[in-house]
Amino acid sequence: MKNYDKNNYFSPDLSNRERATFEIGIKLGALYHLLSGVPISSNEKVIESIEKGFEASISCQPYVKSVKLKIIKDKIKGNKSTELDYDEISGEKIKATVIIEYKSIKVVAKIEWIEKLQYPLMFIEKIEEL
Amino acid sequence: MKNYDKNNYFSPDLSNRERATFEIGIKLGALYHLLSGVPISSNEKVIESIEKGFEASISCQPYVKSVKLKIIKDKIKGNKSTELDYDEISGEKIKATVIIEYKSIKVVAKIEWIEKLQYPLMFIEKIEEL
Amino acid sequence: MKNYDKNNYFSPDLSNRERATFEIGIKLGALYHLLSGVPISSNEKVIESIEKGFEASISCQPYVKSVKLKIIKDKIKGNKSTELDYDEISGEKIKATVIIEYKSIKVVAKIEWIEKLQYPLMFIEKIEEL
Amino acid sequence: MKNYDKNNYFSPDLSNRERATFEIGIKLGALYHLLSGVPISSNEKVIESIEKGFEASISCQPYVKSVKLKIIKDKIKGNKSTELDYDEISGEKIKATVIIEYKSIKVVAKIEWIEKLQYPLMFIEKIEEL
Repeated sequence: MKNYDKNNYFSPDLSNRERATFEIGIKLGALYHLLSGVPISSNEKVIESIEKGFEASISCQPYVKSVKLKIIKDKIKGNKSTELDYDEISGEKIKATVIIEYKSIKVVAKIEWIEKLQYPLMFIEKIEEL
Repeated sequence: MKNYDKNNYFSPDLSNRERATFEIGIKLGALYHLLSGVPISSNEKVIESIEKGFEASISCQPYVKSVKLKIIKDKIKGNKSTELDYDEISGEKIKATVIIEYKSIKVVAKIEWIEKLQYPLMFIEKIEEL
Repeated sequence: MKNYDKNNYFSPDLSNRERATFEIGIKLGALYHLLSGVPISSNEKVIESIEKGFEASISCQPYVKSVKLKIIKDKIKGNKSTELDYDEISGEKIKATVIIEYKSIKVVAKIEWIEKLQYPLMFIEKIEEL
Repeated sequence: MKNYDKNNYFSPDLSNRERATFEIGIKLGALYHLLSGVPISSNEKVIESIEKGFEASISCQPYVKSVKLKIIKDKIKGNKSTELDYDEISGEKIKATVIIEYKSIKVVAKIEWIEKLQYPLMFIEKIEEL
């Protein structure tokens, strides 16, 4: 698996920047859909364990340099006062920053709930040449 | 949410043991499908973070007393020697024990890859009156 | 794979009814977590395709006799009037009935959003000897 | 939701092509992780229902013009000759083509298992100005 040219499969007129934004899009799409529906409570240890678990997981994917995940505690309903008193992860509770480096291009992208759009927006905050 | 009788919805001739095995079945089905496809590498810190994350999550579900998750390291291909050198969680790598208590019934159930069945079997190891 | 005794792994004092409720619990847990976060719009063809897809999938699991899935149209926000105008499947939109037969035991179970519990309850509606 | 400028959140120096490849990356990451672990058998009606379901779902996402999903029948083990005789969707069985249009940019991207990489590669096959 060491001496392949993965780039053979890609359109030859794709720039490194275009490739880098493609790669980070994949990671955000993956992270979001892995998180959807994951049971959670407002207990801080529970939240932190879940955050660390998914950060570690997404960090395994190609070109990822860092993953920071925040499940917004104030939006989690449920502290296990009864058996049914817990919640699930969904778009409005997710705040994440992923950084990748593809060749000389560094991209910082985020998932964030945008109140006025009522939408968990995925966007590129920064793209730069290293 | 404190004074409902959730049992209204259930068939009245269901025993507590039958209800308890139903409840633990839900947890195993949930855990298995949340895990499927989660990126992972053979790095021990990565494995442990992912295990702890899902243990914390499933522990939020009704009647769960404990969750122990083991992603079998020897079956994980990939230590990030290259960008593509990582793996995903799938049935043959999952070993989990969940314990629930529903009323006076305690149930211990497992997910385990059974080599001769080539199947990630979910089974009830023990059921007892407390 | 034809001549195994899968029951070896199960606690010997488990009744067929207890085993049957365990099995249907697995299916509901699986179905629910496969559905969580799936993009959807209020277009009837879209809804129906998604329903049929998951019905077909869960029908492959052990002992399943039928699966009926209804994603509740009135709760889906978004008809693609703009790019962001769509929704995701989550607990309050899911209504499902699964029927299994394990040996001589037939079980009918449901997932249904219960307004007063504010919870997507999974429950056994009927269990009977065939 | 009609008069927002979603682009406010994006880095101002991002080209339309870079934005378009980001958007299609999100869709591939989402599709792949929604599919992972979905129960399936080699029955053609089952396969087709699942394919149609996920095509309909991903088609709801922003800028998507078409989605074509093929779960490779020859790689599916299991035709329900016994209760355990079925399979799950995983990377080596997925073949998908997604087309998006963002402003004047059209992108065609694929998920395909690459035998020599032993990897479900996501790649951009074509990017063009309309």
